[in-house]
Amino acid sequence: MKKKVSIGIDIGGTNTIYGILDREGNFLAQGQIPTKDHQEIEVFLAALNEKIRLSLRNLNNRIIVEGIGIGAPMGNINKGTIEYSADLPWKGIIPLADLFKEFTNLPVIVTNDANAAAIGEMIYGGAKGMKNFVVITLGTGLGSGFVVNGELVYGHDGFAGELGHTTIRPGESNRQCGCGRKGCLETYVSATGIKRTLFKLMGDMIDDSPLKGVSFNDLNASMISDAAKEGDKIAIRAFEHTGRMLGFKLADVVAHTNPEAIFLFGGLALAKDLIFEPTRKYMEENLLSVYKGKVKLLLSKLNSQNAAVLGASALVWNNIENGDAKKISI
Amino acid sequence: MKKKVSIGIDIGGTNTIYGILDREGNFLAQGQIPTKDHQEIEVFLAALNEKIRLSLRNLNNRIIVEGIGIGAPMGNINKGTIEYSADLPWKGIIPLADLFKEFTNLPVIVTNDANAAAIGEMIYGGAKGMKNFVVITLGTGLGSGFVVNGELVYGHDGFAGELGHTTIRPGESNRQCGCGRKGCLETYVSATGIKRTLFKLMGDMIDDSPLKGVSFNDLNASMISDAAKEGDKIAIRAFEHTGRMLGFKLADVVAHTNPEAIFLFGGLALAKDLIFEPTRKYMEENLLSVYKGKVKLLLSKLNSQNAAVLGASALVWNNIENGDAKKISI
Repeated sequence: MKKKVSIGIDIGGTNTIYGILDREGNFLAQGQIPTKDHQEIEVFLAALNEKIRLSLRNLNNRIIVEGIGIGAPMGNINKGTIEYSADLPWKGIIPLADLFKEFTNLPVIVTNDANAAAIGEMIYGGAKGMKNFVVITLGTGLGSGFVVNGELVYGHDGFAGELGHTTIRPGESNRQCGCGRKGCLETYVSATGIKRTLFKLMGDMIDDSPLKGVSFNDLNASMISDAAKEGDKIAIRAFEHTGRMLGFKLADVVAHTNPEAIFLFGGLALAKDLIFEPTRKYMEENLLSVYKGKVKLLLSKLNSQNAAVLGASALVWNNIENGDAKKISI
Repeated sequence: MKKKVSIGIDIGGTNTIYGILDREGNFLAQGQIPTKDHQEIEVFLAALNEKIRLSLRNLNNRIIVEGIGIGAPMGNINKGTIEYSADLPWKGIIPLADLFKEFTNLPVIVTNDANAAAIGEMIYGGAKGMKNFVVITLGTGLGSGFVVNGELVYGHDGFAGELGHTTIRPGESNRQCGCGRKGCLETYVSATGIKRTLFKLMGDMIDDSPLKGVSFNDLNASMISDAAKEGDKIAIRAFEHTGRMLGFKLADVVAHTNPEAIFLFGGLALAKDLIFEPTRKYMEENLLSVYKGKVKLLLSKLNSQNAAVLGASALVWNNIENGDAKKISI
């Protein structure tokens, strides 16, 4: 008997990764193409489709593909579009599902990459059995996926869960965001955000740090994490400030939807205590008493290498199992 | 044939109002008792029960009571409790549903007063047919009820929707909140909040205003509203500031759950343009482009005199119609 599989695609700012997975989340094949190098969406999709086609050919006669799930920044499940993403090379509204129809007759489901991660966490990760939780993805930007009463929150227009673009305080902030506004949470809390914080702190603090020998362009978040682990005061302060901003806004998340747990996912989350301790401290500090000590702040249980693809592929199973045909654009 | 009715009770900081209503939301009887005068919950409930019993006696033989719905600040649907309310005379955890059992065998459903208002808006008001919306109640404090995918969001512990206790900015604020913290949204956006803003503005501005002849204790929000309508600059500025704070935090609400509409309910909302215009302006200013111009900011369609009671009574029908027995504490 042929094995039922789904194709999961994670479109990121730098690379696009895909996988062919069974219902248990096992990868039968995977691959990637660079996103950045393709300034035209049609060329990008043709290249991606060609790669996937080769992978499928190698599995020939052994599988039935049930659908394609795509996670992308500003992906919209209602319309199958990517809309005004600040992180991708394609501007405006991209009718992704429709464009994909040129290549396939399969159902194509498009959503926000963080929503895909939340579905993945629910089906394969630490949120199994939970009805109310939130996943925060910390990559180049900050994404979020909310699950309420066991269902992903898409909202009226399909754009729920943009925690990265809530702002830190009323009025002007110095931090410009790729979205065109200022002071968005992701300008503080993301791989890019902590780098910006570190550079501001290097302007304020006189402590020695090997990071003072690295340019803005060369620095990345894991260098900050490594330095902090070796006791670098500026790097530690940068994590503290990042956790302070995240904890502050997570307290709002709790007041809105009162989740059982909040999962942190992605590069920064792997810094563990460095990010979890200040985040937990400032979240608790900002919580109303009825919530204090009750909301779990957890590391995602999905392997971060594959999680976005796993989540995207899980969209297909989630859709089939919920019989939610209206959310499938063909 | 006897008419099926439910009893709706709205426990407010000042008064507790109840109504006996049919499924169409018609009041067959109503009444109230002062909340503040009863420092002991048992005495309060005995007095309330006695009043309701008399109302029921007058309707004798014509009705069947299906249940009792109670909206109260910090009301918890899972446990039937009121927990640590800053607005009521009873401190700590009050096992409201259990205490009510002394008087009745009917199902008793307890929730947050703003959640009750949201259910009322969905069943009888402007949110009929909407699947994703938020109701903001502006009274002595600020409450909120979130509806996602057609269901009220209670969250894991039953305390979702405490927008009034999200904070305006990270770090210290001057405004003390009844909840023991500082800078909560309701210290700015509520009948009390706008009064506090007005008094701070009277310290800053040299414009003449008849409100300068009124003490803090004597001033109320409708006096500020009346003054603003007559062009009082300080009062107008107070509304502007109130709308700025509300709009700022509503932008977060949109980024979290992407509702179709946000309803404003209660005294301050009746100031119409005075509050709606700045709120809409600052909400739009803080929205990510994908949301701009899409979220309706509407005046509640429930008559504010009766709305909280209507909402509380609607809890009973909502429960019966969803067959959601687990949410009924007997």
